[in-house]
Amino acid sequence: MSFLRNAALYTDFYELTMAQGYFYDGKSSEEAVFDYFYRENPFKGGYALFAGLNDLIDTILHLRFDKEDIEFLKERGFRPEFLEFLKGFRFTGTIRSVKEGEVVFPFIPIVEVQAPIIQAQLIETLLLNILNFSSLIATKASRMRYAAGNRTLLDFGLRRSQGLGGIQATLASFVGGIEATSNVYAARERNLRLSGTMAHSWIQSFPSELEAFMAYAHHYPNQTTLLVDTYDTLKSGVPNAIIVGKHLEKIGASLSAIRIDSGDLAYLSRRARIQLDEAGLNKVKIAVSNQLDEYIIKSLLDQGAPIDIFGVGTRLVTGHDESALDGVYKMSKFAKQPKIKISENIVKVNFPDLKNVFRFSRENGEFQADAISLEKEKSVVKMYHPYFPEKNMELSTFSTEQLLQPVVKNGQLVRTLNTIEEASNYAKSRLACLSSEYRRFEYPHQYKVGISKRLQNLQRKLIDSHRMK
Amino acid sequence: MSFLRNAALYTDFYELTMAQGYFYDGKSSEEAVFDYFYRENPFKGGYALFAGLNDLIDTILHLRFDKEDIEFLKERGFRPEFLEFLKGFRFTGTIRSVKEGEVVFPFIPIVEVQAPIIQAQLIETLLLNILNFSSLIATKASRMRYAAGNRTLLDFGLRRSQGLGGIQATLASFVGGIEATSNVYAARERNLRLSGTMAHSWIQSFPSELEAFMAYAHHYPNQTTLLVDTYDTLKSGVPNAIIVGKHLEKIGASLSAIRIDSGDLAYLSRRARIQLDEAGLNKVKIAVSNQLDEYIIKSLLDQGAPIDIFGVGTRLVTGHDESALDGVYKMSKFAKQPKIKISENIVKVNFPDLKNVFRFSRENGEFQADAISLEKEKSVVKMYHPYFPEKNMELSTFSTEQLLQPVVKNGQLVRTLNTIEEASNYAKSRLACLSSEYRRFEYPHQYKVGISKRLQNLQRKLIDSHRMK
Repeated sequence: MSFLRNAALYTDFYELTMAQGYFYDGKSSEEAVFDYFYRENPFKGGYALFAGLNDLIDTILHLRFDKEDIEFLKERGFRPEFLEFLKGFRFTGTIRSVKEGEVVFPFIPIVEVQAPIIQAQLIETLLLNILNFSSLIATKASRMRYAAGNRTLLDFGLRRSQGLGGIQATLASFVGGIEATSNVYAARERNLRLSGTMAHSWIQSFPSELEAFMAYAHHYPNQTTLLVDTYDTLKSGVPNAIIVGKHLEKIGASLSAIRIDSGDLAYLSRRARIQLDEAGLNKVKIAVSNQLDEYIIKSLLDQGAPIDIFGVGTRLVTGHDESALDGVYKMSKFAKQPKIKISENIVKVNFPDLKNVFRFSRENGEFQADAISLEKEKSVVKMYHPYFPEKNMELSTFSTEQLLQPVVKNGQLVRTLNTIEEASNYAKSRLACLSSEYRRFEYPHQYKVGISKRLQNLQRKLIDSHRMK
Repeated sequence: MSFLRNAALYTDFYELTMAQGYFYDGKSSEEAVFDYFYRENPFKGGYALFAGLNDLIDTILHLRFDKEDIEFLKERGFRPEFLEFLKGFRFTGTIRSVKEGEVVFPFIPIVEVQAPIIQAQLIETLLLNILNFSSLIATKASRMRYAAGNRTLLDFGLRRSQGLGGIQATLASFVGGIEATSNVYAARERNLRLSGTMAHSWIQSFPSELEAFMAYAHHYPNQTTLLVDTYDTLKSGVPNAIIVGKHLEKIGASLSAIRIDSGDLAYLSRRARIQLDEAGLNKVKIAVSNQLDEYIIKSLLDQGAPIDIFGVGTRLVTGHDESALDGVYKMSKFAKQPKIKISENIVKVNFPDLKNVFRFSRENGEFQADAISLEKEKSVVKMYHPYFPEKNMELSTFSTEQLLQPVVKNGQLVRTLNTIEEASNYAKSRLACLSSEYRRFEYPHQYKVGISKRLQNLQRKLIDSHRMK
């Protein structure tokens, strides 16, 4: 969001009309608590990977209404005292969060905001916009990484990303395990590794494919990846790449890779590998691209395709085939009173009050269950199913850690935020604790999330008191 | 894109490495022509609505490499003479385009860029990123508009949009027929109509729903939309809204609408309408939201649901369930030579050279067919199927217009670009010329796009000459 000139108006209109309402109702300093959580894992998977925190916190701490913002709001009918109040707007609240790169599950509070109601409300849209999208893409990238194993995974998605969202998509995809990107803008913003090959137009602009290859190799002798499918991959592209590869060897350089961007990638990569090997170019890698996703990557590798590098685009940066994470931001406390929102659907009733999230792991480090408790509970030894109170689980044999940690206290940053590299490493270490039954793509095992007895009691009490009204 | 501090690096890495290659090959001033077109209509529909031109042209004409850009590229190994060249970068080419808001079809050139190769190449990613996404969302919005008829259609999507892409999504959705938005940032950028209601948290922050409603009505007596589903829509929300509505009438104001955000919208809207009417509040409108798309809107109206206002979100701003338009940018000419890219798949062979697009209409204004010709052809009377040359169509009885018009000539804007309002009006007038068989959602009729004999001959000649090599 540092890409925006100013993010104060990057919000839904109703946040501002409600804020003005709170202001004139004299509620400006009443404190509210909101939780960010989601209800369904994206991509019918077994988890989500949390991303966007760094971007969010940076934006919140710098949120100011400048002259132009105030002028615009005045034109749209906002009133003088409220606008005066906005001029002095600073976020002075407290934010607890899991770490960027954390493995998360449905219903656990991922971020908790405790602030005067106007502040907590005004950052809602911003928070949802950043966290929903970043986490969606980080999760998608982690699935592609899982499918690709230790092969190279590159982001080529900018041309098909959803407008400027492409910048954030690239950043989030690094958290999930992408190694390099074609997106120069994003790379500059966060000092990421860049990668690129050549376009068909490069080849078309030369009298022949071989001349196009030779020219490129001349300019980039030690970082050449040749695109071999412009005319005929096996009859023209690969043979010409071999000529170039041999030539580069003679001058002490080497061809890095060939790229296949169309056709049957399993068949073509296998034939290309044979041709390259027969020419003694065993070290030249094979890169593929063209509408790849985790399923196609897995299928190609299951077929034994000798692919070293996957260039992923559209389906990574847009989170195909789920375009949004359903994360929500719900009020759990206001003016010292725990709050819930009743719903016809019990699954949509939120958990009241300030909370903790405990994660339980086996001795070998594997994640076993998450328990949500009231914040004042410092441990949980037994958890209950959120909707079937008769179901419960003993937790005393597991090791435990608390996931929500303070990030901002009274408007001040109190924890160093993960850089993208740190978040990526953290995600890697956490995903390693998630056993394959939760990571597989088809009907993954459902990770256990429960609530403490005290939280259960409080939620029940609030539901009953609403029913009695 | 004016939202970005600077767009020069908003590109794929390979555009820059190729540009450097062209530069050192002495090709800087060789002229290239690229076409922007797409191959498949989004959403399995019968057309696409073109958007993003204004944004694109503005960005291209202001494209400069500033000091930081040059410094970054230097760090990443780009060479001094090339960097010197980039410092003076200006777009000096010519761009022809259909109008923003035009109804377009697969394969027709929508935008044509004619410029020195380095310039034409450097804007590729930018062009694809902007046009693909804007056109996707404009198309989606136009489908929702088609389903909603003349009912009010609002954009509430920012919180679930793909990061910053949410700004462009809102702009494009206006081109497609959305009337107002919750997105304050986008509204400010282009002076759009704002809209918003209230969140559940507003209601939760009061001791009772009625007090929450009354407070809001007090602040916004003539623009109140009350969210009625926080506790129980029919037993609590609507009755309380009626009390407020009556109260507002007494003080000479009026309740605008109620909003239902969950549950069965057909059933609830019908019951709510009865309750409101029985209370004499016939003028209070009913707004609904919650995962709406064109199919659900159509279904609700088919069921006779008395809904006046649809608030659409996720599925509009992310183009659910198609996250990207497959638009491509292909070289059709280089150094005065017409170019094609051969492919295993005949559908993927592009059309060479500078071209015109003629649209043919019946007397009643209905669009009948589009013909692609060489640019030097000033009319077409018969067109041929792009892949089945034996199929052809006589065009002489139809009225005709030429769609591609110059927008930029030698780096100078030569046509006033459509504002969003103009583009929206234009889209409306053009969609009115598209008969319902092309607009329906299920298996729409396929609009006829053909090529002229001369274009067919040129393409064939180029394919043959490649085959003979």
